[in-house]
Amino acid sequence: MSGIHADDQPLTLSGERFTAVYHLSGVATAIQARQRAQDICLEQTVEFPDELIPHAAIREQIVGQLAALEPLDQDRWEAVIRYPVEVAGRELTQLVNCLFGNSSIQPGIRLVRFDLSERLAQFYRGPRFGQAGLRDRLGVRHRPLLCTAVKPMGLRPRALADLAYRLALGGIDLIKDDHGLADQVFCPFDERVTHCAAAVDRANRETGGHTLYVPNVTAPAPEITRRARFARAAGAGGLLFCPGLAGLDALRALADDDTLDLPILSHPAFQGSFTLDPRSGVAHGCLYGQLNRLAGADATIFPSYGGRFAFSPEDCRAIVDGAVRPMGHFRPIFPVPAGGMRLERVPELVDCYGRDCMLLIGGDLHRGDDLVKNCRMLLETVTAAAGRSQD
Amino acid sequence: MSGIHADDQPLTLSGERFTAVYHLSGVATAIQARQRAQDICLEQTVEFPDELIPHAAIREQIVGQLAALEPLDQDRWEAVIRYPVEVAGRELTQLVNCLFGNSSIQPGIRLVRFDLSERLAQFYRGPRFGQAGLRDRLGVRHRPLLCTAVKPMGLRPRALADLAYRLALGGIDLIKDDHGLADQVFCPFDERVTHCAAAVDRANRETGGHTLYVPNVTAPAPEITRRARFARAAGAGGLLFCPGLAGLDALRALADDDTLDLPILSHPAFQGSFTLDPRSGVAHGCLYGQLNRLAGADATIFPSYGGRFAFSPEDCRAIVDGAVRPMGHFRPIFPVPAGGMRLERVPELVDCYGRDCMLLIGGDLHRGDDLVKNCRMLLETVTAAAGRSQD
Repeated sequence: MSGIHADDQPLTLSGERFTAVYHLSGVATAIQARQRAQDICLEQTVEFPDELIPHAAIREQIVGQLAALEPLDQDRWEAVIRYPVEVAGRELTQLVNCLFGNSSIQPGIRLVRFDLSERLAQFYRGPRFGQAGLRDRLGVRHRPLLCTAVKPMGLRPRALADLAYRLALGGIDLIKDDHGLADQVFCPFDERVTHCAAAVDRANRETGGHTLYVPNVTAPAPEITRRARFARAAGAGGLLFCPGLAGLDALRALADDDTLDLPILSHPAFQGSFTLDPRSGVAHGCLYGQLNRLAGADATIFPSYGGRFAFSPEDCRAIVDGAVRPMGHFRPIFPVPAGGMRLERVPELVDCYGRDCMLLIGGDLHRGDDLVKNCRMLLETVTAAAGRSQD
Repeated sequence: MSGIHADDQPLTLSGERFTAVYHLSGVATAIQARQRAQDICLEQTVEFPDELIPHAAIREQIVGQLAALEPLDQDRWEAVIRYPVEVAGRELTQLVNCLFGNSSIQPGIRLVRFDLSERLAQFYRGPRFGQAGLRDRLGVRHRPLLCTAVKPMGLRPRALADLAYRLALGGIDLIKDDHGLADQVFCPFDERVTHCAAAVDRANRETGGHTLYVPNVTAPAPEITRRARFARAAGAGGLLFCPGLAGLDALRALADDDTLDLPILSHPAFQGSFTLDPRSGVAHGCLYGQLNRLAGADATIFPSYGGRFAFSPEDCRAIVDGAVRPMGHFRPIFPVPAGGMRLERVPELVDCYGRDCMLLIGGDLHRGDDLVKNCRMLLETVTAAAGRSQD
């Protein structure tokens, strides 16, 4: 390579780095493991053959550094790679790109967790409420929170509002839109949100409760803000958002918006493909836990083991860990096990997830004739189970 | 279920439906295949137990309909499901949600293609240029287009501009930012784009050529528009965008922006996890082809077989098919094989992809001392190979 870039200013980066941990699968030897880890160091930064890198300073200051490499089992290795904070810039889009952009396309590489350094973490506010803030809003201290959805799609706004009213009468803490409710002609967003927020408000006045209505504001970018502001003005108490559909950074923008000041539930729609293959993609705890938390979700919905999806108890524990374990200034958030949860499983779920979770029970509440009674029974069951698990 | 929603207005949807095709894996019997397909019909619409759906009209007008179910091989079936156009609304976020939101979380379900009906397609403009429009801008009729990237990360804006100048002198058609170049302190967006656009313009004036500089505008939502407008004002001739990082709908918004009027190259960063497991996720042709095209990409970058990624020739052919096959009013777009393409493979690539592709050659152009000469050799090789493949 000729000295054509000799007039370039020298790089003088801070030297501070953040950490990503990958699991490499299908690795036959230690030498192969090291080669694949080194390839990630290049792929996620310069995307350039090592021998063609024009300056030593780029190799030293830009390229990822392999900090540790350990065997996990016969053909899997754990690689810890440290990237310069400056490579990730000040933007979530580029941070995610640096963590796993091109490596998402390689088989046998799974991003399992990351640790931001202080300098990098400062660019992210994270959850505005977290567990403590959301408990404050609801006035619920010592039991799991209860969440359900107004559904099914096809009901008109007034019918959904009628459901919301009865769910709130029954004492559910958070009543969210089903995530398929967007802005369809048979159920326009503004009309639905107006009616449902008013219905929940009416129930709260009757019961003295603090139920929050949480409409779905997943939408094209400019519409997200409009709908969120409309929802707030109409009396919504939180926002539902699908970062898999609209982007993790759009979630971040929603959480950072001081004019909204509403807790956010994130929903996993269109994110599932990241976690299904254990040899590639992003680990459950990293995606549903860390990344959603970094982006500002106050609660992260995921399909619990034992429902109609196929997550294992171990997957679910990893999500809880990503949601609550120490992560700089980022508040712990609620794990929200969901996906076909049945009422009779509530004691088991409380045993498993403890008091600091939010249980999302959907269709099963609608069995029988008396929705309000079903909700009250659910609340009693959860309160009793949490009392038991308090010891 | 009591008649509590009896006061609801009846549903009167159009009856028009659009189609999604899924491959179901790990299916033992025809009965099981039918059950799993019926589950998708519910999951992607009402997310509600069939027996609890409160109105017959919802079952008839909202729930997906299984239109065909055929065995593919011993344990795989193809299911064709038709959804009401109204369920998908008028928004890409909800259309994608309806196609694969929750089903992305289920193992053994792969979205392989979709066909929009006319009424649904009208909400999407699609590619502004497509193959023909991009060829017009470049004045290149009869050979594959040539693309490369300014890299590696770590070079300063003036050094990248110097590279861009020489790549343009050498006759490369599109010179894009490496997709890891965002807005880092060592290479700020505005400064990089100003210098690179000016450098390419200078080369064009010297050669009489029409090389386009294509900066990366992947960013947080409000910044996307600002950077794209800045880039256009600075003289950029196209935009690079990573929908996996910033959202497919953000790509759609960029393509729809009449004030920009620039061709868009989409890059697959953070989309790879969708395609890696053949039993789940989204098929190559559907993701890199159809979805990117629907969202307005004029060219779709993907890692070609035989490079440093692991796509098969069959995967790549499926992407080409998704990029070019008839799809309503959506223009055919350029497939852009990339990912460690070496110069000596160019004739083979042209044989494989034909003339209507864009070849993206990165690091390999930088071998040896003379970048301009390498580019000219590449152009000659491609022109000769395309002449041969013209017969």
